[in-house]
Amino acid sequence: MVGDNQGMAELTRRDLIAGAGAVAGTVALTGVTSLEAFAQAEKPVGWAILGLGGYANNQILPNMKYCKKSKPVAVISGSPDKARRIAGEYGISEKAIYSYDNMDSIKNNPEIEVVYVITPPGTHHEFTIRALKAGKHVCCEKPMASNSKECEEMVAEAKKAGKRLQIGYRCHFENYNKEAMRLCATGALGRIRTIRSDHGFTLGGPNWHTSRKLGGFGAISEIGVYAIQALCYLAGADPLEVWGSREKTDSPLFKEVEDVNHFNLLFPTGIQGIGATAYTWNANNYRVMGNRGSLNAEPATGYGGHQFRLNGKAIEVEPNNMWADQMDHLSECVRDPQKTLIAPGEMGLRDIKIIEAVLRSAEEKRVVKFA
Amino acid sequence: MVGDNQGMAELTRRDLIAGAGAVAGTVALTGVTSLEAFAQAEKPVGWAILGLGGYANNQILPNMKYCKKSKPVAVISGSPDKARRIAGEYGISEKAIYSYDNMDSIKNNPEIEVVYVITPPGTHHEFTIRALKAGKHVCCEKPMASNSKECEEMVAEAKKAGKRLQIGYRCHFENYNKEAMRLCATGALGRIRTIRSDHGFTLGGPNWHTSRKLGGFGAISEIGVYAIQALCYLAGADPLEVWGSREKTDSPLFKEVEDVNHFNLLFPTGIQGIGATAYTWNANNYRVMGNRGSLNAEPATGYGGHQFRLNGKAIEVEPNNMWADQMDHLSECVRDPQKTLIAPGEMGLRDIKIIEAVLRSAEEKRVVKFA
Repeated sequence: MVGDNQGMAELTRRDLIAGAGAVAGTVALTGVTSLEAFAQAEKPVGWAILGLGGYANNQILPNMKYCKKSKPVAVISGSPDKARRIAGEYGISEKAIYSYDNMDSIKNNPEIEVVYVITPPGTHHEFTIRALKAGKHVCCEKPMASNSKECEEMVAEAKKAGKRLQIGYRCHFENYNKEAMRLCATGALGRIRTIRSDHGFTLGGPNWHTSRKLGGFGAISEIGVYAIQALCYLAGADPLEVWGSREKTDSPLFKEVEDVNHFNLLFPTGIQGIGATAYTWNANNYRVMGNRGSLNAEPATGYGGHQFRLNGKAIEVEPNNMWADQMDHLSECVRDPQKTLIAPGEMGLRDIKIIEAVLRSAEEKRVVKFA
Repeated sequence: MVGDNQGMAELTRRDLIAGAGAVAGTVALTGVTSLEAFAQAEKPVGWAILGLGGYANNQILPNMKYCKKSKPVAVISGSPDKARRIAGEYGISEKAIYSYDNMDSIKNNPEIEVVYVITPPGTHHEFTIRALKAGKHVCCEKPMASNSKECEEMVAEAKKAGKRLQIGYRCHFENYNKEAMRLCATGALGRIRTIRSDHGFTLGGPNWHTSRKLGGFGAISEIGVYAIQALCYLAGADPLEVWGSREKTDSPLFKEVEDVNHFNLLFPTGIQGIGATAYTWNANNYRVMGNRGSLNAEPATGYGGHQFRLNGKAIEVEPNNMWADQMDHLSECVRDPQKTLIAPGEMGLRDIKIIEAVLRSAEEKRVVKFA
């Protein structure tokens, strides 16, 4: 019973009974390989939540109860008290509470199959590499890391470890955004020439967002990445060329990180994607313009309240739990080696490369090749 | 009684009686210079409408009846039948109907003080120059002309002739847009960093829009100029730098003219203006994003139905007749040499130069200096 790299993790008797319930409990546990595999396939994947800040507490952990294939089995935190309290809330045993110092010992806990990294971006590289080296699959929040070199190392490490690496791009799992992708891909808008997206919020701070070391590039990676994502998933492609600008700012908040960036991505089909992002205004929208119609989304990528209009008429979509669906998708990929990740590390790497291209273009005041 | 260059046109006894009514009619007509000037100042300015297409027929002429300081006194047209019919409708005498061939003889008709050029853009230069040479002030529809050289010649000719040259930028006279300018200028949105505007329509064609000779640059001058205008009047400045792109098109409609262009204008204050235009999608909007609020306009610059929102809340503005106000503004400037034109030829020239900079930037794939 050796776990395989793509999801067939080590199977123990306890796992089988606990995880597979009645089916597993009624069969003999020796030599019934196909039933064992079946039971293992049905068993929810155990997730360790690394970083217990607002997003973990308010979105990820509460929404895990809607998961069908994922369950929280451990926490990894720099705050022992908070870790104990939250572990208690979610029925996680004391033994499954780890600190950043001792987290490498998760390799000895077979319950943990996935580590969800939900810390400031500057720490994603370290925690992802450590989790992969401990033999775990990883879901890493966006933005993937502080620069493309880190992203490349993370992708390489996942490949080396034979583990899955997903980026927390929840909009790929949200029904309104999925419908928008479908409408774009199926030609409902006709020939699309222009897509644009503004994503920004007014930052209080100073806090980790304003630190290059912790917060990454700034607004463009923290919130602008939603615009980059939308432009790419609505265009259904990676850009060929990138133009970008950065506007001077006189606020001491933005000495280390980007405040306002504007960028245009030229896609192979001739679609131009126009993005804007800032820490000094609020926006959450996108618009797709085709010769047979236009799609307007605002709010487009928030936690809820999506308003999507096709030629002015509200698009009706059954709301879903994007967080649960995102986590279950990785869990499915952990269980099924044939299944392809929708938002893999390579996508996170692409987006960080786009950000770097935007900043290079802004510096050189010219269009830069991307692909 | 010699007319001066800035509006005190030649005064005749007939003008004085006809135009100034009771006041002039009750005074002796010799030696009462101040009363004559007063009467002349009160007399509506006579406009000749050059080009009797849809815009002249459906917007300009019907709205002239709301003018307080302007009245139609002549038509200049290539279609004698249409000219006669329309002249009849607006009480214009047979003698005041001109063709493009004999229009230079308007110099002998002192009733005509302004010529409003409302023909396809490729003809604006010729008609404007001829009208100025005939001693008339000119209102010229947007886009000003086919290229910046033509615009420069038009501005120079107006200067030489000592006549006013206004560009038909009606949004400067429309109350919603004026309120948006006021909100931007007075800091109601806080520090503004990003303004963007999409303006496009799906063109049927082929028609004069698809001819470089008649239609100008294409979508960017025909409809994109509303975006350029909005970015500039909301930023309250001319751009320092321009970036632009043009997207390949496979439609035979756009062999001569531009279809899709995207452009960014960097303003001195650090505001980035983002524009998009096309003949292959529909849009009419702008958005201003500041650190204390955002303004959203859609439709922004149409003939009516303006919907302007400040932080999501509808802006209530008393609707006005922008066409009448635009014409009366030029008439006021004709009468009052001290008055400054809001949308002079120099502004039309600037916008054509911006379009040329967009296309040069697209060609060279680099940011180009503007100012």
